[in-house]
Amino acid sequence: MTNEPPTKRIHTETDHQTSQLASYKGSPLELKCINTIRALAADMVQKANSGHPGAPMGCAPMAHLLWSAVSSGGVGRDHSAADPKWWNRDRFVLSNGHACALQYIMLHLSGYEDCSIDQLKAFRQLGSTTPGHPENFCTKGVEVCTGPLGQGISNAVGMAIAAKHLGATYNTTDFPNVISNKTYVICGDGCLQEGISGEACSLAGHLGLGNLIVLYDDNKITIDGGTDLAFTEDVKMRYEAYGWQVLTVDDVANGLDDLRAAIEEGKKTTDKPTLIKVRTAIGYGSPNKEGKASCHGAPLGASEIEAVKSRLYGLDPLKSFCIDEDVAAYYAQQAAEGDKARVAWEANFAKYMEAYPEKATELQRRFNQELVEGAFDDLPTFVYGKDKPDSTRKFSEACLNAVASKAPELMGGSADLTESNCCQIKGATDFQKASPEGRMIRFGVREHAMAAISNGMFAYGGMRPFCATFLQFAGYALGAMRCSALSKFGVIYIMTHDSIGLGEDGPTHQPVEMLESLRAMPNMNVVRAADLNEMAAAYQIALKSVNTPTVICCTRAPVSALEHSSRDKAMKGGYIILPEEGDGAPDLVLVATGSEVWRCVDAAKALQSEHSIRTRVVSMPCQEAFLEQDESYRRSVLPGNIPTLSVEASSEHGWHRWSHAQVGMTTFGMSGPLEELFVKFGFDAENVANKGKELVEFYKQLDGAVPDLNARPSFVNIKGSAH
Amino acid sequence: MTNEPPTKRIHTETDHQTSQLASYKGSPLELKCINTIRALAADMVQKANSGHPGAPMGCAPMAHLLWSAVSSGGVGRDHSAADPKWWNRDRFVLSNGHACALQYIMLHLSGYEDCSIDQLKAFRQLGSTTPGHPENFCTKGVEVCTGPLGQGISNAVGMAIAAKHLGATYNTTDFPNVISNKTYVICGDGCLQEGISGEACSLAGHLGLGNLIVLYDDNKITIDGGTDLAFTEDVKMRYEAYGWQVLTVDDVANGLDDLRAAIEEGKKTTDKPTLIKVRTAIGYGSPNKEGKASCHGAPLGASEIEAVKSRLYGLDPLKSFCIDEDVAAYYAQQAAEGDKARVAWEANFAKYMEAYPEKATELQRRFNQELVEGAFDDLPTFVYGKDKPDSTRKFSEACLNAVASKAPELMGGSADLTESNCCQIKGATDFQKASPEGRMIRFGVREHAMAAISNGMFAYGGMRPFCATFLQFAGYALGAMRCSALSKFGVIYIMTHDSIGLGEDGPTHQPVEMLESLRAMPNMNVVRAADLNEMAAAYQIALKSVNTPTVICCTRAPVSALEHSSRDKAMKGGYIILPEEGDGAPDLVLVATGSEVWRCVDAAKALQSEHSIRTRVVSMPCQEAFLEQDESYRRSVLPGNIPTLSVEASSEHGWHRWSHAQVGMTTFGMSGPLEELFVKFGFDAENVANKGKELVEFYKQLDGAVPDLNARPSFVNIKGSAH
Repeated sequence: MTNEPPTKRIHTETDHQTSQLASYKGSPLELKCINTIRALAADMVQKANSGHPGAPMGCAPMAHLLWSAVSSGGVGRDHSAADPKWWNRDRFVLSNGHACALQYIMLHLSGYEDCSIDQLKAFRQLGSTTPGHPENFCTKGVEVCTGPLGQGISNAVGMAIAAKHLGATYNTTDFPNVISNKTYVICGDGCLQEGISGEACSLAGHLGLGNLIVLYDDNKITIDGGTDLAFTEDVKMRYEAYGWQVLTVDDVANGLDDLRAAIEEGKKTTDKPTLIKVRTAIGYGSPNKEGKASCHGAPLGASEIEAVKSRLYGLDPLKSFCIDEDVAAYYAQQAAEGDKARVAWEANFAKYMEAYPEKATELQRRFNQELVEGAFDDLPTFVYGKDKPDSTRKFSEACLNAVASKAPELMGGSADLTESNCCQIKGATDFQKASPEGRMIRFGVREHAMAAISNGMFAYGGMRPFCATFLQFAGYALGAMRCSALSKFGVIYIMTHDSIGLGEDGPTHQPVEMLESLRAMPNMNVVRAADLNEMAAAYQIALKSVNTPTVICCTRAPVSALEHSSRDKAMKGGYIILPEEGDGAPDLVLVATGSEVWRCVDAAKALQSEHSIRTRVVSMPCQEAFLEQDESYRRSVLPGNIPTLSVEASSEHGWHRWSHAQVGMTTFGMSGPLEELFVKFGFDAENVANKGKELVEFYKQLDGAVPDLNARPSFVNIKGSAH
Repeated sequence: MTNEPPTKRIHTETDHQTSQLASYKGSPLELKCINTIRALAADMVQKANSGHPGAPMGCAPMAHLLWSAVSSGGVGRDHSAADPKWWNRDRFVLSNGHACALQYIMLHLSGYEDCSIDQLKAFRQLGSTTPGHPENFCTKGVEVCTGPLGQGISNAVGMAIAAKHLGATYNTTDFPNVISNKTYVICGDGCLQEGISGEACSLAGHLGLGNLIVLYDDNKITIDGGTDLAFTEDVKMRYEAYGWQVLTVDDVANGLDDLRAAIEEGKKTTDKPTLIKVRTAIGYGSPNKEGKASCHGAPLGASEIEAVKSRLYGLDPLKSFCIDEDVAAYYAQQAAEGDKARVAWEANFAKYMEAYPEKATELQRRFNQELVEGAFDDLPTFVYGKDKPDSTRKFSEACLNAVASKAPELMGGSADLTESNCCQIKGATDFQKASPEGRMIRFGVREHAMAAISNGMFAYGGMRPFCATFLQFAGYALGAMRCSALSKFGVIYIMTHDSIGLGEDGPTHQPVEMLESLRAMPNMNVVRAADLNEMAAAYQIALKSVNTPTVICCTRAPVSALEHSSRDKAMKGGYIILPEEGDGAPDLVLVATGSEVWRCVDAAKALQSEHSIRTRVVSMPCQEAFLEQDESYRRSVLPGNIPTLSVEASSEHGWHRWSHAQVGMTTFGMSGPLEELFVKFGFDAENVANKGKELVEFYKQLDGAVPDLNARPSFVNIKGSAH
């Protein structure tokens, strides 16, 4: 299983080693396996000269058990290095992602190509497939990005939801195991202190996710010192309050019987998730650092590592990156058993395909992240002069339903704002403990977990999760939304009440900086549609962006009808929605998004009729899509050397790229009726027209010297994209 | 107490009213008081034609008790309309801020000028002092902005910490009550579902905050429907797991004895916080909507309100905004008692001032938010050629300690990264249950609560809280950081590891969009210092910005020494740190922040010596401060019509305002050593020099037509600032 021939042991056992073996209640090989993991973790961090040796050394016994194949009688996971994306693999999430040396070691021992011995030696180096925290897009066998604490365990809740839903939907009485995997997590106290995990685990308890087993590395140590500095709550009691089964294992360093029994119990309990509180010692085996914060986030040092190896049975104190033949053979055997399980599953799936071709094909399409044929055929079109204007959240509802009827992979819901967010799929039932086939999720008032759970559902496969709240409360979920973008998970965020236009609820609920926060984030689509046609484009962009999350921003209040809106043009991110009158370059360009577009159209018409200022209006629903167009198209829409005024009821920060002057927010909003707020803050057509006129006059005074916003070299991706 | 003469009752009691009174275990006046609150809430929402009547109607009995003065034998709060900022008032936080009609009514009944009957009638209207959610800066008597769920209860934890710390610091054996107030909270299930409240309450239990009493409005209803949709955990058990005393009150609609006893019990229990789970009915009294989600967030309707009034004892179904004389008199009496308590406290404080003039004066200074004289005198200066370069986080530590020794109001800590964030005040002890006089807080891995607790501490008064984590994890805390900015709370955020330069931990930990997220936020200082001198400016800006939070961004790795850095110049937000050689306008301007400044200096020197490109380097530690300078200064630093290249190891989004081209991030980072990353992403001096040269050549090809970035009208604050 290793890329180098196993090292032959030639050293003599130390007294310490003998005594460790003597007190160990289990086979010598088991102990040696676990010790080998510990030593490898210490070696990797030492070679990288940075990283976290303590947690892997303490958690090695858990990893050992979780990597024992079910099919060989172990209690652990079935998975396959030959097909890391095998649908029914048992998922594993290392929620304490800083312990990732452990994960890479286990992947190495199981034969995953991204974790060769050379890659273990390249731990945390630029370009390696063994980065400082687990990255799903970088390392095959890693399911999600973890490291930001609390994300992993919350992702795992999403994976368990996905598995339960898909099992309920696609399994049959004669094929009960098409989707039947379990999800395992190792997490530390950091993950449990984070609010996001409380949100996710409360929901997991409510939903009775019996396919989720969490091993809590209770090592009593945080970065600052003992957990008694800040974390003295009764975790067992809290998780029982959530409706979990909580089991306690007092020791894993001297034998695995208790942990094995606990995992068995967790697997047997199918009506609630299980938390196993495992008492461990951080940096186990380190004579001077075990049980101390000092082994959390720094290399142990060469001499300490030698001391570790001299104390742990089966290790050679003088060798690094050493995996003895018997150890390698053991894990190779476990991996082979896991792969056998996959092969057996595939044979079974072939029969399923014969018996239930429709279900099987749909499942294949879903796991391949392919859109159904004609996915966008039912998207509605707004007919000017005939259809009634409405809020863009109602338009979002129409589009969501138009695509959802064909795409069962769209599953999601709201953080307790279903009606306000207009995100109910008509006729769809709730995903609940008693109805796992339902596709609407009641997330509760838990925005951060909602986003992380959606990430987990996407990571599971076969899913296009959507989730919803007020745009302002994206600020509660940003930690997880960023993980969507980083992990390349095409989660769809429906964010309504997208400006001060939400009105009376006031500045606590009115987003100002949020659009810019999201636009500044790499690999994130932000779409703010001006009407139904642009909303159809938003859904098309979102669904096509399998590896990019999309935020669909919607108004609370109705927008006026637009004569020249276009789904196809909106797909380009920006387009001329009202051309200037007559020939030649316009005198003024207004560029706007969402609910400000129709006001700009009104302003432009007034400028033309009252002042003969030939004004163009550009609707720019998606900057990211616009930036992907070629330069000539972009210039044809936004010439750059024509006075350009941007209008968005949101922070003006970031708009200097596109405009010479901005009508935007520089303060927080206020509580009051929408139209009064729009006048107060200058987003009414009259003020826009006045400012447009001022802008034209300003440059006239400068003898027409309009700085050309397009006369800039593009230094984007100077050295190429990172990934 | 009302601005209008009390309305005389002329109607006849209905059967419903008689029966309500008959079953009520308490005085008729008490019931009438509570019913009056209910009716006023329904009236306010009806008149506003938007808002939340259900929670105030259900919570009215709690409010009634909390507004009964301690000094008159009640169990409630002592506070004073005559001096809403009286230091030792019992604090009240309405964590379910959408129920704010309730708070405004109680303030009205207590004689607070901002809540006159006219203001109750102007509820949720533009410019009123009764906005749609409570805003501390808008309404006297409101302590914090609530509405974003979970913030209020977390703020209250901060208030309780502040009270406990100040009490331990300033009370004496003979003056035990200089600071001795309690903090009361009403919250709903939404607040308890949010992760932030779990974080804050776990810490509150750990700290044994016996001065905190939370009334949980357990009405079993969320916006989407029954709480059984998503929230079935055992809240009592969870809070007991946190170490709280949890009491249960099954009914408050038919009498207050149980709740009164529970509050008494909560006040007696001084070693742990108390949660009182109060079973209520949302929209109590509404014949068709009581107990239903439909009365959560919409007016009841005129006929339903009439029906409510005809059912509730003491009300006239045909009158709106009606407060009978006896009701007004009762609350006026309570308010007077509260004010008496203040007067007595003031007399006591006068004696305290005589006995302990030093303590008393310091406390006054603190509550006045005045800096100690010479507050900045000890800030260090970096001497080029003599002092050793270091990371800016170490510089931050030096500056923090330089100001902290003189400013005891600086109290705070880290989310379990004390050493990494370099935020330990030397010699300071921890604030713990047994050591409330300590000023270092161990927040645990709880970023969101940390920020909200800091807000609460600031709101309490006498405090300049600071808190720390990695800059990337500001994304976890953004909901509360925004509340700092909105609420005008000068919290100091120390955010280290501020770019891809954190290195091996990789993209999950490397901020990219975070600086721009924060810069797009109104009323938020973002300072990224390039060396010790600029860091001293950062602390000076932060401390002087009493009503603006400041984020101090710090590097993990050392920065090279800068010859011309200046604390005074850095205070202006941007300045020339390396002038171009010779006379006349420069050929090129490089503008950078933090760890990129010295690289730009190196690049500029190379451009001069190798290509005779006369290059100016501008250091721009704080855009907000720079924008406050007059135009001539800004132009003297950044001419705008000279090719300008910005260099920041963060998203280039937002930099188009300042530069023609950007060296910035457009993707997430990677795991690897810092210097390799800086080369990979183009932030090394060599690449910066190359791009600078390219930029100069680009405009040469355009015959020197450099678009003038300053040739734009300023439309900032088009219609004036909101507040």
